[in-house]
Amino acid sequence: MTIKEIAVVLKENNDFEILTHNYPDGDCLGCGYALALALRQLGKRANVITTDKPKTFKIITSTVENEAFEPKFIISVDVADEKLLGANEDKYRGRIDLCIDHHGSNVVDAPLKYVDSKAAAAGEIIFELIKELGAEVSRDIANCLYTAISTDTGCFRYVNTTSRTFRYAAELLDIGCDSELINKLMFDTKTKRRVELERDVLDKMIFCADDKCAIIYTTLEMVKGMGDDETEGIASIPRQIEGVKLGITIREKPDDTYKVSARSNGDVDACAFCKRFGGGGHIGAAGCTLTGTLDSVIEQLKAAAAETL
Amino acid sequence: MTIKEIAVVLKENNDFEILTHNYPDGDCLGCGYALALALRQLGKRANVITTDKPKTFKIITSTVENEAFEPKFIISVDVADEKLLGANEDKYRGRIDLCIDHHGSNVVDAPLKYVDSKAAAAGEIIFELIKELGAEVSRDIANCLYTAISTDTGCFRYVNTTSRTFRYAAELLDIGCDSELINKLMFDTKTKRRVELERDVLDKMIFCADDKCAIIYTTLEMVKGMGDDETEGIASIPRQIEGVKLGITIREKPDDTYKVSARSNGDVDACAFCKRFGGGGHIGAAGCTLTGTLDSVIEQLKAAAAETL
Repeated sequence: MTIKEIAVVLKENNDFEILTHNYPDGDCLGCGYALALALRQLGKRANVITTDKPKTFKIITSTVENEAFEPKFIISVDVADEKLLGANEDKYRGRIDLCIDHHGSNVVDAPLKYVDSKAAAAGEIIFELIKELGAEVSRDIANCLYTAISTDTGCFRYVNTTSRTFRYAAELLDIGCDSELINKLMFDTKTKRRVELERDVLDKMIFCADDKCAIIYTTLEMVKGMGDDETEGIASIPRQIEGVKLGITIREKPDDTYKVSARSNGDVDACAFCKRFGGGGHIGAAGCTLTGTLDSVIEQLKAAAAETL
Repeated sequence: MTIKEIAVVLKENNDFEILTHNYPDGDCLGCGYALALALRQLGKRANVITTDKPKTFKIITSTVENEAFEPKFIISVDVADEKLLGANEDKYRGRIDLCIDHHGSNVVDAPLKYVDSKAAAAGEIIFELIKELGAEVSRDIANCLYTAISTDTGCFRYVNTTSRTFRYAAELLDIGCDSELINKLMFDTKTKRRVELERDVLDKMIFCADDKCAIIYTTLEMVKGMGDDETEGIASIPRQIEGVKLGITIREKPDDTYKVSARSNGDVDACAFCKRFGGGGHIGAAGCTLTGTLDSVIEQLKAAAAETL
């Protein structure tokens, strides 16, 4: 399907529900609300279905108030797998009419699908679709799309950023999106607890294998009461350190296991490292699960790092 | 003067020296080397004059080897004031033929000047000039300009980022600049000492005025042996914390004084705060200098914060 064909389908239908994934992020929310706003402009009814509305994204979620109606056309945005619908999975599995996504790994079962894995964010696709629909890209829509694109690219820092990403960002700035506020909220605000956690994690950081490996960990006690959004990104800390080839993050889980994330700069195979412990992933980012005491988990990882590096 | 007129002047002249500012950053180095590469393409001789070549910027500084010749035309790039030439000030003051800059506060005394304060980075101006010169924007030039633009905008995060910035970044990616490597080097690498300093600073952070003010400090002991590039950006830590209206950073200086930076989110006047201590600046970022013991400096700032907030 082409964007043009999707636009035709949307124009021919009405009473939309737009599904986002669980633990919603800037991309799925930005897409959902931008598309709902555009469809409403065309005189259609459109609601956004989320499992949660984190307050960080209020600038997006405050733009649309859901109305009561019986949905006739279900769209999923940025959802790679029905499983990721979370609490909405049972209700919507098998009922999705159109799936729009940028994950090459998409396995959603839907009669109409548009997956563009070259898009850095699903927001890029939704931007193209809204223009094709002939809707005006209002300031609210621009804020939704700028949030979608900037958050999925780490503010244009990740390798998925392309010249298309930059061109769309330019258009959104020209339309008047509030990039200043969005950047402040998304990339320049940390809770006090998050700052304390970072301090804690750095305090307890362990270097091994001639400083080529850095290990950090969080215990349940350390992250007590913190949301996923508050602990996100911690795993990038050890790998950022100059000279560190392998950065390891250990997270204690409620089921007495330890979830391990390994990140490398490409010279070291993080996937091979995790396979030693029955895990897997990519060369630059992989994971595995270990059991035992925290000390024994650390010792096992240190020994494996010494052998690998 | 227009970019077109500057291009004409450069084509009519030869044997260039391009001056950058002291404590050179990505923007001045990127501009200097990109312009030298472009002028050399046109068959001219061009050297870049720096007080230092920090190893972080090797991708830029390795592109041009200075040659021996008597300069006939001196250009300054990204230099707002002759004072900022540092060790090169005496030699070049009064000899600059053309000044290219993006600082509205530019006071350089030169017969030819081009100051575009709307440019997020001087690199945007140099990009326009190189295209006007008819030089090919090679991969090396694109790397220099991408570094210039990305570093001066905090990777497109700061408020100076415009749609022009994004459009130029798109062009540079299309040309094939190595944004992945540059982003890794500029925004995703910290020295071990830097990480230790951050931990140290967080360990000693002080909250006051109902947590609306956060104070951090560095002593000479804490930053011993660290370069300016390693301690840069520390002042942004306290202001990032949710709920903090005024973030204060105290730096012990070798002359027994304490340099204080105050950053606010705009609701609080950082300039008025610093004026209490004989300093000044902008509403969002200001500074002052205090003397005494570290403890007495902290107490004075806490008392002033309690009154202000």
